[in-house]
Amino acid sequence: MHAITIPEPGGPEALVWAEVPDPEPGEGEVLVDVAASAVNRADVLQRQGFYDPPPGASPYPGLECAGRISAVGPGVSGWSVGDAVCALLGGGGYAEKVVVPSGQLLPVPEGVDVTQAAGLPEVTCTVWSNVFMVAHLRPGETLLVHGGSSGIGTMAIQLAKSVGARVAVTAGTPQKLQRCAELGADVLINYREQDFVEELRAATDGAGADVILDNMGAKYLERNIKALAVNGRLAVIGMQGGAKGELNLGALLAKRGAVTATSLRARPPAEKAAIVAAVREHVWPLLSDGRVRPVIDSTVPMREAARAHRTLDESTHIGKILLTTAG
Amino acid sequence: MHAITIPEPGGPEALVWAEVPDPEPGEGEVLVDVAASAVNRADVLQRQGFYDPPPGASPYPGLECAGRISAVGPGVSGWSVGDAVCALLGGGGYAEKVVVPSGQLLPVPEGVDVTQAAGLPEVTCTVWSNVFMVAHLRPGETLLVHGGSSGIGTMAIQLAKSVGARVAVTAGTPQKLQRCAELGADVLINYREQDFVEELRAATDGAGADVILDNMGAKYLERNIKALAVNGRLAVIGMQGGAKGELNLGALLAKRGAVTATSLRARPPAEKAAIVAAVREHVWPLLSDGRVRPVIDSTVPMREAARAHRTLDESTHIGKILLTTAG
Repeated sequence: MHAITIPEPGGPEALVWAEVPDPEPGEGEVLVDVAASAVNRADVLQRQGFYDPPPGASPYPGLECAGRISAVGPGVSGWSVGDAVCALLGGGGYAEKVVVPSGQLLPVPEGVDVTQAAGLPEVTCTVWSNVFMVAHLRPGETLLVHGGSSGIGTMAIQLAKSVGARVAVTAGTPQKLQRCAELGADVLINYREQDFVEELRAATDGAGADVILDNMGAKYLERNIKALAVNGRLAVIGMQGGAKGELNLGALLAKRGAVTATSLRARPPAEKAAIVAAVREHVWPLLSDGRVRPVIDSTVPMREAARAHRTLDESTHIGKILLTTAG
Repeated sequence: MHAITIPEPGGPEALVWAEVPDPEPGEGEVLVDVAASAVNRADVLQRQGFYDPPPGASPYPGLECAGRISAVGPGVSGWSVGDAVCALLGGGGYAEKVVVPSGQLLPVPEGVDVTQAAGLPEVTCTVWSNVFMVAHLRPGETLLVHGGSSGIGTMAIQLAKSVGARVAVTAGTPQKLQRCAELGADVLINYREQDFVEELRAATDGAGADVILDNMGAKYLERNIKALAVNGRLAVIGMQGGAKGELNLGALLAKRGAVTATSLRARPPAEKAAIVAAVREHVWPLLSDGRVRPVIDSTVPMREAARAHRTLDESTHIGKILLTTAG
């Protein structure tokens, strides 16, 4: 098969489409013929040499994919050759074939084509596990989503609205904010021109956000604590603004607040399977009936993954960037 | 009646026993003839002028008390004149009488005398709400308690052991550590001579603490994150080592960890009542059957509260310091 390899870490040009050995499914795994994968920030870090795959994971980038099962290993039940699936991966999605633990498989939802489904596992699992399983967003509460037009952001808006929460977003352009509004966002904040703490307070009678989904890390830490409501929960899922920041525990204590930080990739298979099962139970019905939709920015042939990475590096996209093997 | 007043903030001598007007119970409140109160760190901050009582609270210090109900306001059910009770207070425990919202009352447990019961509400409510309601300590997990010989610490050890958790403590003298061991602590760390991160790792095969109950705040923040296990929860309840510290979100994310910070005093009555109800359900049976005991350092006449505060300032105590009106 072919896969995107990284002979030397570096810029987008470090991604090289090459012939590599086919993987084989082991106990509890299936082999998927990949129709498409999708791009995540973690892939950029891996390309740059800052994020080695966890032990046992494929050396190729790609944390999600969709396609058809072409072989089933021993000890797998409930899945058959030919099933249209998408999957959360520890790596290896940028390839024509990938081995997947069966607990990380999801059926392609009704009404979603297999290519689009490749952009669903990371965003649904990240948003559901953080905003709902960890931060317990409830109906009537306010969620602040930083980077509202990202893949994660566009899914967070839709899922929060589906449970009856109020959603505020930050983004860097009017076009991105407009797309967030179309998806249901109630409060639109242009972080280049407005202070998100002030805007959020103004929009919530001074109360602040019950839950914040943050991809900026240290850069926003102090302001995120200020923007939290009493009993508020800050869920950090990215550190695009650095890892080390000052935490004012007095301010956190005055709000009886919580700061959590998680990632999906390093979780053991049992935790990934539990998240995937919860997503299948709670999110998949919303996709099947069309209340929640994948938001796709663009589709690029996988062999040209460098082009997709340039788009992500420039942050001009809205929603997910897909990589297709057929292209 | 008499109460401890604070005419001018300052050292222990700022505490003045004086004649003041009797309080009267309003809707949903009872009047308690106070047999005893107990000393908390927050009382010291209030004495120093750093912690004003929340709106509507008594101006006198004292966050807990025990005694007998002497009058019942309108709208109170389940409590009668003459009942022996202890109570979580927003203030006013350092007095001969205090008004208490009925949701913050607890019966004096069987086998505990009314004076000793004065030292139970703050420690049981703080430990239960943080270690169990927020951090969800589970059987078989490891709890690290900083200040293991404090009132909070001695209760945390006992409650964690009662659910089948493993307990590590820090304290500053062999005598304090010995008392922690008698209460059930499994891992004893002298913070003056040992590095608690290293000692805890050595005692847990490198895994770290699933839950940390911390009273030091900023000073321990970095080391507490290092001492956390994967999926660990750091519950900050005091800031004796400062409020602002550096948080390494990368380290927190690698552990999928959580940092929470809470206080009891500022919570609205409904939240206090929910905590008190949970404590009555889960902790009171353990006190009634003797599996958990109040740990009392000393008993001082309330009019000599200054003496009790000097002991707390010197940190030579083990367990709670009580203040009795009869003395």
